[in-house]
Amino acid sequence: MANIAIMGFGTVGAGVAEVARMNHDSIAANLGEEVNVKYILDVRDFPDSPYAAKMIKDFSIIENDPEVDVVVETIGGARVALDFTRRALQAGKHVVTSNKELVATYGRELLEIAKEKNVNYLFEASVGGGIPLLRPLFQCLAANQIEEIAGILNGTTNYILTRMVKGGVSFAEALKEAQAKGYAEADPTADVEGIDAGRKICILSDLAWGKEVKPAEVSMEGISALDLKDVDIAASAGYRVKLLGHAMRMEDGKVAAYVAPHLVSQDNPIATVDDVFNAVMIRGNAVGDVMFYGRGAGDLPTASAVMGDVLDVIEHRTKRRNIGWSEGACLADIKELSMRWYLRGEFSAEAARKECGEAEELAPGAVITAPMKEADAKAAAAALGACAVLRVL
Amino acid sequence: MANIAIMGFGTVGAGVAEVARMNHDSIAANLGEEVNVKYILDVRDFPDSPYAAKMIKDFSIIENDPEVDVVVETIGGARVALDFTRRALQAGKHVVTSNKELVATYGRELLEIAKEKNVNYLFEASVGGGIPLLRPLFQCLAANQIEEIAGILNGTTNYILTRMVKGGVSFAEALKEAQAKGYAEADPTADVEGIDAGRKICILSDLAWGKEVKPAEVSMEGISALDLKDVDIAASAGYRVKLLGHAMRMEDGKVAAYVAPHLVSQDNPIATVDDVFNAVMIRGNAVGDVMFYGRGAGDLPTASAVMGDVLDVIEHRTKRRNIGWSEGACLADIKELSMRWYLRGEFSAEAARKECGEAEELAPGAVITAPMKEADAKAAAAALGACAVLRVL
Repeated sequence: MANIAIMGFGTVGAGVAEVARMNHDSIAANLGEEVNVKYILDVRDFPDSPYAAKMIKDFSIIENDPEVDVVVETIGGARVALDFTRRALQAGKHVVTSNKELVATYGRELLEIAKEKNVNYLFEASVGGGIPLLRPLFQCLAANQIEEIAGILNGTTNYILTRMVKGGVSFAEALKEAQAKGYAEADPTADVEGIDAGRKICILSDLAWGKEVKPAEVSMEGISALDLKDVDIAASAGYRVKLLGHAMRMEDGKVAAYVAPHLVSQDNPIATVDDVFNAVMIRGNAVGDVMFYGRGAGDLPTASAVMGDVLDVIEHRTKRRNIGWSEGACLADIKELSMRWYLRGEFSAEAARKECGEAEELAPGAVITAPMKEADAKAAAAALGACAVLRVL
Repeated sequence: MANIAIMGFGTVGAGVAEVARMNHDSIAANLGEEVNVKYILDVRDFPDSPYAAKMIKDFSIIENDPEVDVVVETIGGARVALDFTRRALQAGKHVVTSNKELVATYGRELLEIAKEKNVNYLFEASVGGGIPLLRPLFQCLAANQIEEIAGILNGTTNYILTRMVKGGVSFAEALKEAQAKGYAEADPTADVEGIDAGRKICILSDLAWGKEVKPAEVSMEGISALDLKDVDIAASAGYRVKLLGHAMRMEDGKVAAYVAPHLVSQDNPIATVDDVFNAVMIRGNAVGDVMFYGRGAGDLPTASAVMGDVLDVIEHRTKRRNIGWSEGACLADIKELSMRWYLRGEFSAEAARKECGEAEELAPGAVITAPMKEADAKAAAAALGACAVLRVL
């Protein structure tokens, strides 16, 4: 029998307990041993919970119990979670987490402690919720050089964008709907300003290229300034507006990573990913483009990924997965990236062509430019008096 | 340094050699050791190949060389490949393959030998080419009970269907185009009659439910009898015709598995998968629906999956992956499945409703029925004089 301790009994922590309960028998059959939730740590009281007998408030019980094999950290944030994760790893426990903020910011340090202690620190659930994504990237695609990653990494904003394009409602109205449905928090900043997606593109970049990409150094632009008019023009012309985390390896070995809304052609499978679903496209130099799709959040989907890591750790207790990244990725200046741009204003197609080369006209006063750098696109936009400027994938 | 031997220098075997060459340095950096192709076994002569010095014709050289860690089997078929795989495993070598025919038919036996000898027999490349699919299924989703799998598992037929819907050409013409492009073989039977997809749905079912599903017991219907008219009617009504491998766990614990063309609603991400791409949707009781998408064939994509397995084996030389399946899946009679059906003929919407319940009219004389069993659908079709009957996902 393997014993696990869950730290944090919120949505994901409760989901982990539920998956361990509802799939108890099939997990035991798969694994060849039972998985027992021994403790659930939370500062709050849950007197009516079926797990009341397992509830504890003192982390040192977990830290000092040699029977605990794996600690699941679903506290979130980078304060208490950081302290407990460090101590659990130091105590020689494997740790599995869904905490993207912690992994994006302190992953390198925590993986070093794990290496020192010959234990695992795994975090499949931190990106893409239940979608198998990080293990396929670092294991199944290990024989590739990864060239590019582009993904819908945040379900809240994808729900909002889907409502804008399908419901014809403004950003503000769609956000209210998302809040009413429980998809967006009362303070939606981390979602709608691209911070959540930014953490996730950092984790993907860390794994893809083996060097730390710091969230603080990554440009993050959200969708709060998005005009319904541009979403509509794009849709009529065969494009969908999607908030993408985007990272690529440049020819000089530098890594470019950022989050921004993009127009995506409907021929690209990412364009058809709607509602709270996530999808990530990874391009490897052998495999070409592969895409992973599924629910990027929610209690049971996220718990599915957490428990997948837990089972892997239990099956290979004595064997560490060799993952980690070193300091100091050399970040490319995303201003130097050449890409196509969407511009909208009160200008003629001829004027647009004069400023931006072979522009594709989507609607009167709305064009997609030839590939150019950001400064050139902004200069063209200024010359044309454009009021909207968006990237095109 | 790890030594591998490649058996079979066809498209995939040559792709494996090429990936090992072009990504030699990044693989060595990832793995912490070099991967060397020591032998390439083939009955043919390749005097001008850069690998001429590695070419051998005698399998016993591989069998008896203690320096060979991993044998890559890309011979195909189930004759020589079966003999050499058995002997390589018996000799204590790990074996990695892309050979779906062998895995679907002899996988259980070969995995048993591997278990006895404490070596790995891995076959990620046998389903979905380069798409990470089997490892995510048996590892990342291990905490789920798998409920259903539906996928476009054959790129050749998906190319043909894409040409029919987008090019307006008949099955026969689209097949000729596919042959001209090298996507279809001179004898296209295994592809167009659903046999290739059938082997793959068997492998997926074996892994998902742990019991052997034999290709000989699975109903396989291809696309050679498909009428362009039905493809067109479906497209106009928001459906795409796709050849799907489909498997599900029934309430009584039996497994239903078959291959057949289906109408798929355009709201389903599988419907938008075109050309030679593959996509597989897996439904788990915790994760919900996840989808995996990419190139299902081709030298480098398939080699990417083969090499991913090779690297995994090398990294965990002493640790066997605990995969396998036992004898005797209890197969459900697919005639007992209740599903919606597409019927076309010279009948009125009222007549269709009388025969098939709440039918959805796609066009005059073309309806989708309420869910019903195959016998009832065929009886209704006979009563209506329908000339086309297709399943609806």
